[in-house]
Amino acid sequence: MKEKEFISIIKDALNSDYIGDDCAYLKDLGIVVSQDSLVEDVHFKRNLITPFQLGYKSIMVNISDICASGGECVYLTVSLSLPENVDSNFVKDFYKGANKACGQNIKIVGGDITGSGKIFISICAIGKTAGRNISSRANAQVGQKIIVSGVHGSSSAGLRLLPNGNAKLIKSHLEPKAQIEFASKISKTVKEKYAMMDTSDGLMDALSTIANESKVMLDIDFDKIPYDKEIVQFKDWKDLVLFGGEDYQIVATVPQDYDSGIVIGYVKEGLGVNLSGQYFSKEDVEKKLFNHFGGAQ
Amino acid sequence: MKEKEFISIIKDALNSDYIGDDCAYLKDLGIVVSQDSLVEDVHFKRNLITPFQLGYKSIMVNISDICASGGECVYLTVSLSLPENVDSNFVKDFYKGANKACGQNIKIVGGDITGSGKIFISICAIGKTAGRNISSRANAQVGQKIIVSGVHGSSSAGLRLLPNGNAKLIKSHLEPKAQIEFASKISKTVKEKYAMMDTSDGLMDALSTIANESKVMLDIDFDKIPYDKEIVQFKDWKDLVLFGGEDYQIVATVPQDYDSGIVIGYVKEGLGVNLSGQYFSKEDVEKKLFNHFGGAQ
Repeated sequence: MKEKEFISIIKDALNSDYIGDDCAYLKDLGIVVSQDSLVEDVHFKRNLITPFQLGYKSIMVNISDICASGGECVYLTVSLSLPENVDSNFVKDFYKGANKACGQNIKIVGGDITGSGKIFISICAIGKTAGRNISSRANAQVGQKIIVSGVHGSSSAGLRLLPNGNAKLIKSHLEPKAQIEFASKISKTVKEKYAMMDTSDGLMDALSTIANESKVMLDIDFDKIPYDKEIVQFKDWKDLVLFGGEDYQIVATVPQDYDSGIVIGYVKEGLGVNLSGQYFSKEDVEKKLFNHFGGAQ
Repeated sequence: MKEKEFISIIKDALNSDYIGDDCAYLKDLGIVVSQDSLVEDVHFKRNLITPFQLGYKSIMVNISDICASGGECVYLTVSLSLPENVDSNFVKDFYKGANKACGQNIKIVGGDITGSGKIFISICAIGKTAGRNISSRANAQVGQKIIVSGVHGSSSAGLRLLPNGNAKLIKSHLEPKAQIEFASKISKTVKEKYAMMDTSDGLMDALSTIANESKVMLDIDFDKIPYDKEIVQFKDWKDLVLFGGEDYQIVATVPQDYDSGIVIGYVKEGLGVNLSGQYFSKEDVEKKLFNHFGGAQ
């Protein structure tokens, strides 16, 4: 809750139209830009993730933000703050993981390195927008269908299983993959306004945000949401699917004739999320939200 | 020392030509980008700087990096990590200071806010390069003169005086000003290759870095370096001028006929810094350097 309160203060303080989406779309420069941070003991625990995985995941999280805007991620800067007890092997492995996440097309071009009491990673990602239709969470149109790129709940299930358990679930938590092609295809082919987000803070958070920012009702059929059958080992697996977070899948509202993605519902007149008959206002979702403040994820 | 060791590991890991300068010059996008972080109890102490000043200074430090590249800072993203005991007044005042530093022409367009044990601020700055000759620390040319934009040593003297003492010195530490016009004039009028840096890590660090990256000798006359007479209250005031850091002045190598700035020396054949007859190798300077690791500045 505190995060949302602070964001509203920041919006007031800056009186800026840019604050709100995960990425800022800087039309005059033809770029989108986003920044995200990972803090030790808030977003990860050092004994539960390798330096390689941490480098990989930090980068992927930011690539995912750019994807979700419809942009093509091309450059990153990385700011690392490291405690005294972190050695050069940590830095080497972190950047090996970062490199792997970047693949052939994305380059790390700068940043800084400082001391600190805990590990702190902040990454800025820059994407090109040429030839792409850039999304906004406020752009969902009544009549569009709602699609997702893949399964939800696996990452939060994997987190619960750490350090040992189903390898696929754990991997989806420690080594998520940004849905680069899925998002690119949408931004390169959809011509009308549309909403797109990644599901970093959970599927319901993304749905509710799109609904409330676009002032529409998202009518969702829970049974259409894909999930890995392995997660039903948890009694509250439905909550993992809906609120779990960190799957880094894409959710988008696209024209009815768009030919990719898994359809989970439709954009209708109204406000909020209707989940198989159960209504969720903005406040209902926030109450259940993944709370960044005051505890491990 | 550890910071330089880590940067060399990162350079190897990434095999990137961009890492090294404070800003990365992304020619295809027509922008320069930089990222810098401020960590509580490493770069500042909460009881010695107001939230307003912290917001102001964090932004200025990043504007200064873009200036030093020759770019025109236009956009910033701000990532804030805040402990539980930080309240909404802190956030309000921080952004009031940030806004003041931005002035009319620079916009904060994004970022994120997360929890953490200590305050952590990471800022990414983006500058336009159109109509400007972008500098590199490797571009100093034999025959150029070396100019600075203003006094050195005031910020580190102010830091020593905190919380009370000469108001001007303390202000130069808590509320530094990026040398926007000074740097812009150089990048808009100098046609040949030139080196420019801000003196965030100290004047000698900047001089030594330019010398070693450009493979030249910087011949400096100490008596030409401007400083505030108030700092001579410290026995080691000459060290404050040379190694103090955080003055955020500009040092540049420019053609002999360039008509602004305070001339402190000349670029000659050789390697390193010759300071009024005393020779400083890269290692000599590093030994005396402001060490980011393991202590409040």
